[in-house]
Amino acid sequence: MITVLPVEGMPEVRPGDEIADLVIASIDLREHDVVVVTQKIVSKAEGRLVAVDPEDPRSVRELVETESTRILRRRDDLIMTETRHGFVCANAGVDLSNVESGRAVLLPVDPDRSARRIRDGLRARTGVTVGVVVSDTFGRTWRRGSTDVAIGVAGVAAVVDLRGTTDGRGRVLVGTEICVADELAGAAELVMGKASGVPVAVVRGVDPTWLRESSVSEEVVRPYREDLFR
Amino acid sequence: MITVLPVEGMPEVRPGDEIADLVIASIDLREHDVVVVTQKIVSKAEGRLVAVDPEDPRSVRELVETESTRILRRRDDLIMTETRHGFVCANAGVDLSNVESGRAVLLPVDPDRSARRIRDGLRARTGVTVGVVVSDTFGRTWRRGSTDVAIGVAGVAAVVDLRGTTDGRGRVLVGTEICVADELAGAAELVMGKASGVPVAVVRGVDPTWLRESSVSEEVVRPYREDLFR
Repeated sequence: MITVLPVEGMPEVRPGDEIADLVIASIDLREHDVVVVTQKIVSKAEGRLVAVDPEDPRSVRELVETESTRILRRRDDLIMTETRHGFVCANAGVDLSNVESGRAVLLPVDPDRSARRIRDGLRARTGVTVGVVVSDTFGRTWRRGSTDVAIGVAGVAAVVDLRGTTDGRGRVLVGTEICVADELAGAAELVMGKASGVPVAVVRGVDPTWLRESSVSEEVVRPYREDLFR
Repeated sequence: MITVLPVEGMPEVRPGDEIADLVIASIDLREHDVVVVTQKIVSKAEGRLVAVDPEDPRSVRELVETESTRILRRRDDLIMTETRHGFVCANAGVDLSNVESGRAVLLPVDPDRSARRIRDGLRARTGVTVGVVVSDTFGRTWRRGSTDVAIGVAGVAAVVDLRGTTDGRGRVLVGTEICVADELAGAAELVMGKASGVPVAVVRGVDPTWLRESSVSEEVVRPYREDLFR
């Protein structure tokens, strides 16, 4: 059984805040918990805020282009981008919601490092071994609606490789690599909601073998040359 | 808080079985539970099995082509297809694992209808209102690793539209449509594992307003003409 707990009562996050401090002030963590933290508060804590003129669409567009390594498609206001992390997402992850007017939130420079910092902080303060997922809301090309996915991890597997294990009939399974980090991010989103102000959730009861060193950039980001659709 | 419960002790599913009967024999359902059922047992119950020669790659390839409306890309053994449901997935969802040798499992003809049949069966037998998600494991083009997604739903929202609601600062959120059905499918996968023989999970504690009529084919499948990358 897995439980997904919203972490309620978190204060507004400001540049310089330590997310680990804010989390442990609001919830008691247990061994092997996975703490899912939304990108927005990670970016705010890291000071990833820039000025934009919300009345001038060009100002936002130029910021999106600066934050992109490739512009993949454009349609109306939507710019499908590849970020320097290798993420394919709308508008390079630049976000104007849940931030004061005239400011935009950028993605963390290195979300795996952001996750490690939070994980190390939680471990130092509580002594328990936890995993951390930094999540963001991305669209998908074939399917409508967005889902939360992992943009950074620490201490929890991004991808669990079931290659070589056998199915219920003893057949060897080929190529069953599950991106549990994205499923953890999505499960956390189910208790967060976009508008309810719950930026952190704890997933309790995951397979303890998943608690290992990992990285979204190495395990999840599909390189351009390997992709069939870019 | 959400809990995700594996439904253990389910028997091997055979053509003609009623999934609803097998589920209620294994778990007590509560009002507003969401029951996530993997595609494979739904297809088996519906008799969606065909003969293939596992030693002849051509036999499998021809089946994949028959099950596809478009072949989008090919690389080595991988065929990226669009199915007649509009799903974009590898090999048209044709699956040779967890089935006896010489047989392949096809996707249900209409997975939303499959979900409705299970939901109606559960409601008739228990009197409780539940949602049903039929899930399958799909890859993603930009990200490595597969995740479980919804291919059919009944009685639970596929996409929750937060357009027009406000964020924590009173700004109107634009375009925040969350595909909760995919997040529910992924959360269920976290307690199933691919090899552990748990084909059903129950997600308990979801927002009760999500329990409404819905459809993957209408709310999630992105039409070809709307897609920027096909």
